[in-house]
Amino acid sequence: MAPVGGKKAKRGILERLNSGEVVIGDGGFVFALEKRGYVKAGPWTPEAAVEHPEAGASIVGVNCHFDPTISLQTVKLMKEGLEAARLKAHLMSQPLAYHTPDCNKQGFIDLPEFPFGLEPRVTTRWDIQKYAREAYNLGVRYIGGCCGFEPYHIRAIAEELAPERGFLPPASEKHGSWGSGLDMHTKPWIRARARKEYWENLRIASGRPYNPSLSKPDAWGMTKGTSELMQQKEATTEQQLRELFEKQKFKSAQ
Amino acid sequence: MAPVGGKKAKRGILERLNSGEVVIGDGGFVFALEKRGYVKAGPWTPEAAVEHPEAGASIVGVNCHFDPTISLQTVKLMKEGLEAARLKAHLMSQPLAYHTPDCNKQGFIDLPEFPFGLEPRVTTRWDIQKYAREAYNLGVRYIGGCCGFEPYHIRAIAEELAPERGFLPPASEKHGSWGSGLDMHTKPWIRARARKEYWENLRIASGRPYNPSLSKPDAWGMTKGTSELMQQKEATTEQQLRELFEKQKFKSAQ
Amino acid sequence: MAPVGGKKAKRGILERLNSGEVVIGDGGFVFALEKRGYVKAGPWTPEAAVEHPEAGASIVGVNCHFDPTISLQTVKLMKEGLEAARLKAHLMSQPLAYHTPDCNKQGFIDLPEFPFGLEPRVTTRWDIQKYAREAYNLGVRYIGGCCGFEPYHIRAIAEELAPERGFLPPASEKHGSWGSGLDMHTKPWIRARARKEYWENLRIASGRPYNPSLSKPDAWGMTKGTSELMQQKEATTEQQLRELFEKQKFKSAQ
Amino acid sequence: MAPVGGKKAKRGILERLNSGEVVIGDGGFVFALEKRGYVKAGPWTPEAAVEHPEAGASIVGVNCHFDPTISLQTVKLMKEGLEAARLKAHLMSQPLAYHTPDCNKQGFIDLPEFPFGLEPRVTTRWDIQKYAREAYNLGVRYIGGCCGFEPYHIRAIAEELAPERGFLPPASEKHGSWGSGLDMHTKPWIRARARKEYWENLRIASGRPYNPSLSKPDAWGMTKGTSELMQQKEATTEQQLRELFEKQKFKSAQ
Repeated sequence: MAPVGGKKAKRGILERLNSGEVVIGDGGFVFALEKRGYVKAGPWTPEAAVEHPEAGASIVGVNCHFDPTISLQTVKLMKEGLEAARLKAHLMSQPLAYHTPDCNKQGFIDLPEFPFGLEPRVTTRWDIQKYAREAYNLGVRYIGGCCGFEPYHIRAIAEELAPERGFLPPASEKHGSWGSGLDMHTKPWIRARARKEYWENLRIASGRPYNPSLSKPDAWGMTKGTSELMQQKEATTEQQLRELFEKQKFKSAQ
Repeated sequence: MAPVGGKKAKRGILERLNSGEVVIGDGGFVFALEKRGYVKAGPWTPEAAVEHPEAGASIVGVNCHFDPTISLQTVKLMKEGLEAARLKAHLMSQPLAYHTPDCNKQGFIDLPEFPFGLEPRVTTRWDIQKYAREAYNLGVRYIGGCCGFEPYHIRAIAEELAPERGFLPPASEKHGSWGSGLDMHTKPWIRARARKEYWENLRIASGRPYNPSLSKPDAWGMTKGTSELMQQKEATTEQQLRELFEKQKFKSAQ
Repeated sequence: MAPVGGKKAKRGILERLNSGEVVIGDGGFVFALEKRGYVKAGPWTPEAAVEHPEAGASIVGVNCHFDPTISLQTVKLMKEGLEAARLKAHLMSQPLAYHTPDCNKQGFIDLPEFPFGLEPRVTTRWDIQKYAREAYNLGVRYIGGCCGFEPYHIRAIAEELAPERGFLPPASEKHGSWGSGLDMHTKPWIRARARKEYWENLRIASGRPYNPSLSKPDAWGMTKGTSELMQQKEATTEQQLRELFEKQKFKSAQ
Repeated sequence: MAPVGGKKAKRGILERLNSGEVVIGDGGFVFALEKRGYVKAGPWTPEAAVEHPEAGASIVGVNCHFDPTISLQTVKLMKEGLEAARLKAHLMSQPLAYHTPDCNKQGFIDLPEFPFGLEPRVTTRWDIQKYAREAYNLGVRYIGGCCGFEPYHIRAIAEELAPERGFLPPASEKHGSWGSGLDMHTKPWIRARARKEYWENLRIASGRPYNPSLSKPDAWGMTKGTSELMQQKEATTEQQLRELFEKQKFKSAQ
């Protein structure tokens, strides 16, 4: 998805970043569109790329596979690497909208919940405002999101950074920031939630007391190129399933 | 939202239920539309009603405020009440798409997460298939959803009840049921998720290890009509906030 | 275990309660002794009774099977019942030292963790101080504990009620109340834990992120007298196990 | 505590390890004794050392501060280090009996629950059997426990390694291994728990649905020698507390 921005949109991404602009990216289409029925879930490839080829190595960053926290930790390492090598580049981050503290090296693809049970991991708008602020403080200027982002998550980035960007996004007409639209609710204790402090400090519950908070991901240690990772032309057979369960049994016994 | 159904839609709801049809309702517009930026969150009223006035007391059921589990327990009590009174009526249920085991009498309105931190409580499509099956087994024939339902949740009802209704919903063209679209994924362990047993038995994690699984709801014990529940014309003042916090302090010390 | 109390111990329990004394009981021997290797775990009967037969119906209360919270809710109902019937009796409570919010009617016996996986449910001394205070405020004057109570839990009751009883228990010589013994620790942030407010407000973590917070208990709905609940003379056979699993499967599918 | 072992106890620890014996150590006295009222909690030093000075660098390992999982990961690194350096030494591990996946570099001392709210983190006997097996498989022959270990935890090590050691510990007379003492319980579903498979696969619940599963430890990054870590001669003053909270506020805002 192309960055929003009226006339500015005609400028190249590097031009925009060089001029000091904060660019907001949105790559979160796959999961959102699947839920709305626009795309077919199957052998999908939730990969996003900076769309402007002129960017080259002038922008470094991460997208997809990990949550905002892990992604920013990674960008921080990249930044330190760049500084150590006396290189200069714009920083970018487009994390998942899912909390993934339990991901191993391969990311959310290997979580048992992928891709149809990720609901309880979805970040709130407040999680995203916190992420946007931390990204900005780290020096990231291309700040966006990948799988799982919905429009209100992108709006949250734009609202958090409104002081720096100088304007609120058009979508902010639809609500007041930090829940301020609640200040005329009939119940006094809900009116009292129309405050930044309320949402910022709330530890929200999962409502799932029979479920754990973390999962152990499948960890086959295989990456691109391994012979076992070829896309099949036909559905998995019963025989292939049996072989797989046998391997899983062996692995989990280790 | 009016029930889908082509020519059948012209028939009244009672006519449809009397003929043995399973009617799927969708009242989940408020929360979904807010996130997509179509409606303004404020002094909203997430109330849904069966739209056809001719229905009268011929349909009994519940909608909104509670999760599928609690809602069906309630409908079960209603059914037993009807049988005890030798009355006959169609049963309806339109629960939230949020898990609310910790709700007290007033429902999710009083959860600390309401309305902008409910993400981790969102049901999966598999939760909804289970709900649809249990509702059907209980004798409910108007089966739908309220706040929090997204199109893929409604599709899950229709897919679960496809054998009874005799057809799959049009939206099923976009994916295979029970994750079957994954059966050609490049990774063998993800191909192995293209099975009903996998999703049915998975205990999904919240990915939020610093958060609890349940919340203690505000429980003011006030209902409609109480003087304190008047809608305000102006925003809450600092003085009103102070009075409220004082009361909360008193209550939580009890 | 007989209530402690020097010379006072020679007086009957009713005499002591009638004189306004707060009596502290300890029935928590079974689980503690099993862990210390003094008793053999098997077909045990963790039942406690008020040891003084002269008590008769002059004392009503509950012991064992449920946690402090549920037990006090029960005693509150008993108290209301007594008042409604214009009866007078001393109140007693001796709950488990295990948190059991997920118990059904038969109590912790039916939790999947019973009896060798109850560790994470053990109450802290702060939980017990809170329980002792709430019991006292409710009017309970025979305040004790059952399975799972260790000496430091009983001490916590005595310390919480020291103002009312007029003295600290002898065991308090071994430590300072509310963690005050920490106030000379080498680390400043641990010194800062030598305060009531710290321990009272801490939400302690389980350290078990792959485990749920609640369990679904076995719920066979059988109570004393049912033919299936006869004590066996011999170990369970493979055939009996198979029959049992078959029944469980049937029940969990309901 | 000196290793148990009758006549063998007269032999030095190196002699015993060199002869291929599995030595079981127990350093878990501090926490257990505090709860039983034998020791005073204050500026304690839960440090354990291999008691036999002749051991020298012939035994390497870890004790205290971390849970069995983290401790064994550390011993594994030590083992790899030894092998890389072509050195030979006996391996030792004496972890906490508390689950501490959320510990940072300084260990459980810095967890908010230290030292009076660690209850829900206590390992079960099954956790310890698993740990003993993994330690043995890694090549560790001095296998014990530190803070939090109770006698039944030490017994669990001895029972798990009974095949290798050739005998059961005396304490095993008090119960049957893997819950076998339950096989004549009156309730059939509890009889069915007299099996290794049951306890090995059970995901035990915390019974604390309002609490999180992990904590964020204090992380002051100070270690021995820092001027701020001097033991105080007097209790913390109000002024010192204020300064501390100010620093914590600053740190948590980072």
